[in-house]
Amino acid sequence: MISKAVISRLPRYYRYLGELIENGVERISSDDLSRMMNVTASQIRQDLNNFGGFGQQGYGYNVKFLYGEIAKILGVEKTHNVVVVGAGNLGHAICKYQGFIKRGFNMLGIFDVNPQLIGKSVGELEILPLNELKDFIAEENVDIVALTTPKEAVDNVVEICEESGIRAIWNFTPVDLKTSPSILVENVHLSDSLLTLSYNLKNSRNDRME
Amino acid sequence: MISKAVISRLPRYYRYLGELIENGVERISSDDLSRMMNVTASQIRQDLNNFGGFGQQGYGYNVKFLYGEIAKILGVEKTHNVVVVGAGNLGHAICKYQGFIKRGFNMLGIFDVNPQLIGKSVGELEILPLNELKDFIAEENVDIVALTTPKEAVDNVVEICEESGIRAIWNFTPVDLKTSPSILVENVHLSDSLLTLSYNLKNSRNDRME
Repeated sequence: MISKAVISRLPRYYRYLGELIENGVERISSDDLSRMMNVTASQIRQDLNNFGGFGQQGYGYNVKFLYGEIAKILGVEKTHNVVVVGAGNLGHAICKYQGFIKRGFNMLGIFDVNPQLIGKSVGELEILPLNELKDFIAEENVDIVALTTPKEAVDNVVEICEESGIRAIWNFTPVDLKTSPSILVENVHLSDSLLTLSYNLKNSRNDRME
Repeated sequence: MISKAVISRLPRYYRYLGELIENGVERISSDDLSRMMNVTASQIRQDLNNFGGFGQQGYGYNVKFLYGEIAKILGVEKTHNVVVVGAGNLGHAICKYQGFIKRGFNMLGIFDVNPQLIGKSVGELEILPLNELKDFIAEENVDIVALTTPKEAVDNVVEICEESGIRAIWNFTPVDLKTSPSILVENVHLSDSLLTLSYNLKNSRNDRME
């Protein structure tokens, strides 16, 4: 069993290794990786040893190989089909973000209920009406729904997701979804993040005054 | 000292209490709050006791009072001035998100380097050129820079932030910022979140097969 703590650090390793590949770096020592990532070399060695120890004494890590192994662990060696529900600014941003596409997340569709938006283009996609979502999920083998609607629309979309047998929701709404256990939910609660920043601002200010 | 674990749960309490106020609820028992939030009533009592125990036996919590107290702890009893750097879709979304404005985050400006974007409107704001950011931060007493540029632009913006004495960066780029310790950074790494979802998808799939 790999610990949750290790798992939670994998996306960051993956991000840095991806950067290295883009910059043409073929191998890296745990010391250099440690300096880049600002974690101890021993933590890096311990973390990566969980996957069979990809490093070699005196050589370091083969960047592409390690990237590929972590990709497999993260499940991104295969592609995922994604649709966005909610064609506001955030929905547009997610649909068009090259970083996701590069990591094998195919943005297949974007949906809304607003008749003024339906039919408009978002990159190469056309905004589709929400009542086509259920069939679309089945026909296009959609893995993930990225949810960016106003909170009032959430219950309705979740119901469609339940009926369609979708396996995962990437939730950007400020709502904790009430879904059946068969649906995985990953939350990006932007307001909570901003409040955390506010708390830290307040308390670093107090520190200074004292 | 309030523990980090408690602090990390406060934004969620704040969110739920805000919902209750919107729905006209004046008081709530820890049992009811517990059911809503899907945490134990004893956890809620323990968490909120850190702030002097706002609940009363047989009455429960006064929603508005508790909301106000948590607001003070989170530092949102005062307003914060925010500018967005990067006027892409994500920048637009952050600029216009009503949930932030409602919590006292004033969106004062949005900046970009693209001449085709400068001068265009985002809600009531006009996109300003990045070379005006430094003076703007000083003149408008900006607390927080929300960073939504491509990663190539990050170093330049961080340099401006350092020179301007900004206190906090809300970072949406897939880069771990290298800032001096005087600048607080709160990260929203969207790709990391999506990779976590991918990992969970892969592993719940394996669980089912076994």
